[in-house]
Amino acid sequence: MSTLFVRTLREDPADAEVPSHRLLVRAGYVRRAAPGIYSWLPLGLRVVRRIENIIREEMDAMGAQELLFPALLPKEPYDASGRWTSYGDGIFRLKDRKGNDLLLGPTHEEMFTLAVKDMYSSYKDLPVLLYQIQTKYRDEPRPRAGVLRGREFVMKDAYSFDVDDAGLEVSYQAFRDAYVRIFDRLGFDYVIVKAHSGAMGGSASEEFLAKAAVGEDTYVHCTTCDYAANVEAVTVSPPAAVAYDGLPAAHVEETPDTPTIETLVDHANAAHPRTDGRDWRASDTLKNIVFSVRYPDGRSEAIAFGVPGDRDVDVARVEAFLGEGAVFEPYSEEEFAAQPSLAKGYIGPGALGADEPAGIRYLLDPRVAEGTAWVTGADEPGRHVFDLVAGRDFTGDGVVEVADVRDGDPCPVDGDEGGVLVSARGIEMGHIFALGRLYAEALGLQVLDENGKLVTVTMGSYGIGPTRAVAAIAENTLDDLGLCWPRNVAPADIHVVATGKDEAVFAAAEELVRELHAAGVEVLYDDRPKVSPGVKFKDAELIGVPTIVTVGRGLAEGVVELRDRASDERSQVPVAEAAAHLVSLVLR
Amino acid sequence: MSTLFVRTLREDPADAEVPSHRLLVRAGYVRRAAPGIYSWLPLGLRVVRRIENIIREEMDAMGAQELLFPALLPKEPYDASGRWTSYGDGIFRLKDRKGNDLLLGPTHEEMFTLAVKDMYSSYKDLPVLLYQIQTKYRDEPRPRAGVLRGREFVMKDAYSFDVDDAGLEVSYQAFRDAYVRIFDRLGFDYVIVKAHSGAMGGSASEEFLAKAAVGEDTYVHCTTCDYAANVEAVTVSPPAAVAYDGLPAAHVEETPDTPTIETLVDHANAAHPRTDGRDWRASDTLKNIVFSVRYPDGRSEAIAFGVPGDRDVDVARVEAFLGEGAVFEPYSEEEFAAQPSLAKGYIGPGALGADEPAGIRYLLDPRVAEGTAWVTGADEPGRHVFDLVAGRDFTGDGVVEVADVRDGDPCPVDGDEGGVLVSARGIEMGHIFALGRLYAEALGLQVLDENGKLVTVTMGSYGIGPTRAVAAIAENTLDDLGLCWPRNVAPADIHVVATGKDEAVFAAAEELVRELHAAGVEVLYDDRPKVSPGVKFKDAELIGVPTIVTVGRGLAEGVVELRDRASDERSQVPVAEAAAHLVSLVLR
Repeated sequence: MSTLFVRTLREDPADAEVPSHRLLVRAGYVRRAAPGIYSWLPLGLRVVRRIENIIREEMDAMGAQELLFPALLPKEPYDASGRWTSYGDGIFRLKDRKGNDLLLGPTHEEMFTLAVKDMYSSYKDLPVLLYQIQTKYRDEPRPRAGVLRGREFVMKDAYSFDVDDAGLEVSYQAFRDAYVRIFDRLGFDYVIVKAHSGAMGGSASEEFLAKAAVGEDTYVHCTTCDYAANVEAVTVSPPAAVAYDGLPAAHVEETPDTPTIETLVDHANAAHPRTDGRDWRASDTLKNIVFSVRYPDGRSEAIAFGVPGDRDVDVARVEAFLGEGAVFEPYSEEEFAAQPSLAKGYIGPGALGADEPAGIRYLLDPRVAEGTAWVTGADEPGRHVFDLVAGRDFTGDGVVEVADVRDGDPCPVDGDEGGVLVSARGIEMGHIFALGRLYAEALGLQVLDENGKLVTVTMGSYGIGPTRAVAAIAENTLDDLGLCWPRNVAPADIHVVATGKDEAVFAAAEELVRELHAAGVEVLYDDRPKVSPGVKFKDAELIGVPTIVTVGRGLAEGVVELRDRASDERSQVPVAEAAAHLVSLVLR
Repeated sequence: MSTLFVRTLREDPADAEVPSHRLLVRAGYVRRAAPGIYSWLPLGLRVVRRIENIIREEMDAMGAQELLFPALLPKEPYDASGRWTSYGDGIFRLKDRKGNDLLLGPTHEEMFTLAVKDMYSSYKDLPVLLYQIQTKYRDEPRPRAGVLRGREFVMKDAYSFDVDDAGLEVSYQAFRDAYVRIFDRLGFDYVIVKAHSGAMGGSASEEFLAKAAVGEDTYVHCTTCDYAANVEAVTVSPPAAVAYDGLPAAHVEETPDTPTIETLVDHANAAHPRTDGRDWRASDTLKNIVFSVRYPDGRSEAIAFGVPGDRDVDVARVEAFLGEGAVFEPYSEEEFAAQPSLAKGYIGPGALGADEPAGIRYLLDPRVAEGTAWVTGADEPGRHVFDLVAGRDFTGDGVVEVADVRDGDPCPVDGDEGGVLVSARGIEMGHIFALGRLYAEALGLQVLDENGKLVTVTMGSYGIGPTRAVAAIAENTLDDLGLCWPRNVAPADIHVVATGKDEAVFAAAEELVRELHAAGVEVLYDDRPKVSPGVKFKDAELIGVPTIVTVGRGLAEGVVELRDRASDERSQVPVAEAAAHLVSLVLR
């Protein structure tokens, strides 16, 4: 500690939004170089490297092969895949001295695909599993939370290449198993959730999240089964279509001054009571919300989402539905004014749909199932239509999952048996994704199959961010005193603190450090001669090495004190046995 | 080899200029992604990693601490040092979505300096030795020779920070020693040469070069002492000033049609013979060459170099003198026309110098020492001045080392005893440099000294490029058959080739591979069942693992064949002893 390039800070950095960021800066793990861009000091780099090594060992063990693509990339492959455009402002673009377009790679699907195309041509060459651990770049609109969402970050990105879907399924499962081993070895509390497959298409998609209250991802899990999903990926089990024979015909009613669901329900209960005796509820109404959408490739359109009136449209779910880079906002007054067929506050299915005059694509929540009856706008101010039956009186242009998900919603798997969803927050650390043929098609990656016929290769993509993992694990494990690392990723195995001014103490501490080093144990040794024990202990707590050994006053009685950083359990060990005891603790 | 992500090529790539580039592509080590930007395939990445590990071990052993700065950097520190401008087109600049200026770091002096400023404040904290192994970017005007001069490349850059010059000297020597250990371990033929300190100032500066005929660096070494220097750094031992009492007075002579040194010497020997009996030689004349120079910060000036007429001005030495990014060319007809005091072909010291009407800075070769007499232009067409004595009749504005260095020139160290210089070519792989206070001053890095006084810290910088090292070592060691790696950097320790179709052969080869793996030996195993022995041997020669073991026909007699790739020595070893023999070969 007397020579280590580190300075701990007593004060929180002004720009730190989350606890892990505050502590990683205060404990001297990272320093900010620019917004979303960080320097890794020696302690922080050791954690990154230990995480990378665990990932590398498991990748190598499963037969994935490591290579390394450049970060600075030519435009052409990203043009072919469409991502040069679709990424919008999310990537860093630049020109070289000759005016050629370049970008800083956000992920490397294109480069891996082209490498396989360059090298392989037969089904006999497949499957091949490739990975790299490499620095990536995204121009985040709001870089936040330190290294949790940086603009420069390290990623392990891996890809599988298979000749058919069955092969992809095997590769996907092999990577999933390796990820479980990696996350188990990292030694913290994580959850695997179903994820949205996104605009990329593809099938299976799962995220590995660190549980953390400050996480940007909301996920839900079932109270009774093992279902867990990112909120963007939750699907509603649609009610079965019901027969609508015998339902009353739709009828328009005067509903003056009812532009909101609340005013509509109140008015309906007062003026148009239900015949079955119960009150009208917000969930009996159909709310239609129009958004104007601009896609990163320049296209734009208006979309109306029809959702039950008791639910809001969830922005994150809309984002997932529209795909990366799309910008959307509710229809403006000007846009309403330009579409006389839309009566703001009273918009109904009658005015919506690609075929109607306004030409607005109309997408319905799965709960608006065939045979369900709704109260909804009649497309005239002050009027609503009652008993409007889906499938009989109206249809949409498609189904959409954008209504919000709530604690208590039925589980899509065992909701019938009473399973309900509850939400929690997490930090995305890994993502595995059966990507399919999107990139292989865009870049022409085909091989000859057993019958000598050209087939397009199918791919999976598998990512973990080691630098983000540092912050996510920190966030998941920290406590009031500071960082609190799992043993496998800590910057050192043992933190030895020598206290006082007694030369015998320092001599004993140094001997212990020597023995530990000789046994292959990584030690952080606080040898600072003029620093008080209180400051040394505070630093040790802040830095968060899992075992703290104090060599101090106890030495007179021949003992040193061991403290478990996480549990705060303390014990005394005879100094002569300390090294052996610690080695067995670390290497068990 | 049946699953390794590699394909060897029989044909040379069209764009490859040097043998190492051809072979690294053909053997499947690298692939070009864009001009000067390469992907590292598994074989290539293994070589990079082995080189990096040797460097890391020696850095750690000498007490240097590893950290990691971003590659994407804010403009401000590079503005403060002046390098944002002085790098000219040599760096990649870009803007983020908010319009902020960023660059891709070419080297990280600024970031290291600011990190030390951020963390340290006292002489007690120094010295500190810091390093990183990190990806760097330079927008080379002519990226060439594959990974030898790439636009994206990996660098180990290290810096020392000391409170005074004596400390810097110790740090410099410690890094020099570590570099010698690194280069010795890399196991190829290198040379340490004095280097030009450049526009940065600084004092000691040495380069570690791989000897290679295709190298971009020309260096000279003495035939009798251990002097060796990059040609930019060679200094001429100036002749001692001689007394000029009694020399004849300068006199202008008619020398019609003598615009070149050759015509002048011929005319002088015919019309104005020397009185001492010997002929006039080109080395008796003083040639003055005017350049117009534009600096990267926008300044421009004209400079005249006065050199003995038998020597050319060496462009590389002019570049080194002017500093990175300066652009220069000989005076144009238009520029001469605009300066009537300059008579092209007959320019003499009389018209040159900052104080003369043309205002041209006039710098003289050290051989133009005080008391030496010259024949040179009289600043009128068709006239030269004879017996013009330096120090008596003219002086320059300074001394410059830009005249070419030639085989046979006297060694600056022991030229008096007959030591002469001979030239050779090499590839710069490492550079150590006592940088001084330039960056610390620009960025305000000061610490309190023992007396409580603020002093500016002095720095050294120490770089090695691991990715360039791959090509440089390849270039230094390759032969007609292919790559030929030193043992410590080869992508594998042993290349096992199983030949034929006999199942017993493959079983024996696999058993050998298993035993070698178990002993910690890295093996490349050619298990391809349908590939001919000839193709397998060609691939093994091309890939260049230092020891090739053939398990094939000899197995019937119980032996395998060992072949040393470099010497082509072959021997037979009983199959039962093969593993132990190979382990002792590799791990000795």
